[in-house]
Amino acid sequence: MSEFKILEIKQAVFEKNDRQADQLRIDLKNEGIFLLNLMSSPGSGKTTTLTRTINLLKNELKIGVMEADIDSDVDAITIAKTGAKVIQLHTGGMCHLDAGMTKQGLAGLGVNELDLVILENVGNLVCPAEFDTGSSKNAMILSVPEGDDKPLKYPLMFQICDVLLINKIDVLSVFDFDIELCKARVLKLNPNIKIIPISARTGEGIPEFCDWVKEEVKNWKGVSHE
Amino acid sequence: MSEFKILEIKQAVFEKNDRQADQLRIDLKNEGIFLLNLMSSPGSGKTTTLTRTINLLKNELKIGVMEADIDSDVDAITIAKTGAKVIQLHTGGMCHLDAGMTKQGLAGLGVNELDLVILENVGNLVCPAEFDTGSSKNAMILSVPEGDDKPLKYPLMFQICDVLLINKIDVLSVFDFDIELCKARVLKLNPNIKIIPISARTGEGIPEFCDWVKEEVKNWKGVSHE
Repeated sequence: MSEFKILEIKQAVFEKNDRQADQLRIDLKNEGIFLLNLMSSPGSGKTTTLTRTINLLKNELKIGVMEADIDSDVDAITIAKTGAKVIQLHTGGMCHLDAGMTKQGLAGLGVNELDLVILENVGNLVCPAEFDTGSSKNAMILSVPEGDDKPLKYPLMFQICDVLLINKIDVLSVFDFDIELCKARVLKLNPNIKIIPISARTGEGIPEFCDWVKEEVKNWKGVSHE
Repeated sequence: MSEFKILEIKQAVFEKNDRQADQLRIDLKNEGIFLLNLMSSPGSGKTTTLTRTINLLKNELKIGVMEADIDSDVDAITIAKTGAKVIQLHTGGMCHLDAGMTKQGLAGLGVNELDLVILENVGNLVCPAEFDTGSSKNAMILSVPEGDDKPLKYPLMFQICDVLLINKIDVLSVFDFDIELCKARVLKLNPNIKIIPISARTGEGIPEFCDWVKEEVKNWKGVSHE
């Protein structure tokens, strides 16, 4: 039913990654394509958040999605139902994507005429933070059940992201999660990060995230292209 | 208040890992020390589960705990309150522990006269599955909010574990988590794994996990040592 490719990608040479990432960013900028790298722990709600986001944005932006997973294609099947262009990337056991793998993914997806490509990275709070994918901006999700202490334990991820979505706020009442304490811990690591509480299940907060995405895409493409 | 050391550990040479792990396992067997490697995503409840487990077992077994984290010592502070011997291992950004790092941790902890050492690995469903730590047995936690599709997406972790704790069953009613479907997916990957539903918050299921641990420690030490 759903139409998407599955691509087996290989790890790029590690030491070249930063250079490749910078070059990829330049290329994407020249093509007017905004690449958002979305990261989180397993099960934080990346795919549900993306589904909501795409449904709100798809009339305004041409969107492609790269679903990275070690195995399976369950997320690509879900995203394909939104009508967005989607490709499943299999990382062959790798715990993250680097710039070379991202470039292979973009080539496999086909980005002509897309405004926005979202990379759903491998579910992992550690390794994806260490590898620049060449993305225009980095986004992350922390979900309420994971706990408000995660900024203390995985600081790099919070430091390298431009926006943090605190997801599953619809279940705040059944978990010991102090959202103000969590925000304070995050802002201490990264004073410039934008924090948006959301519920991917109910849709709360998704419009605010979509506004952020639209503004970033507009800035990336530049006023002269509008 | 709490007394524990913080040790900065270095990555062992990758290719020697399997050999080092086998040797460590032999050494621990000869010393009558059972090493349990506990893995999960960030925020699945490893530390709360350990606290409950130690409190139930500490009159029967001499227990040590190695808390591995990229940064912070919040988990070691929590565990120290149980009275167990504890050390915080800082991995210096590494996303997993290998056998050499585990050996450094054991030396730092001091294992003389301990029956059971529990390694709380870095919160990560990917990389820790790929590195044999030299443990006697591997345990993992999957929590209900993470979703019942995780065995499809992170199969290796489920394949290499001897016991799976499905945690946070006290909040099953507020999440779309099919526990029977999850079990079936896990058993398809690993027919020999023992699956125990628990709630680290309420204590449900912890006695069954403790029974499993006691039996494994007894088998490891061998009947002749009793």
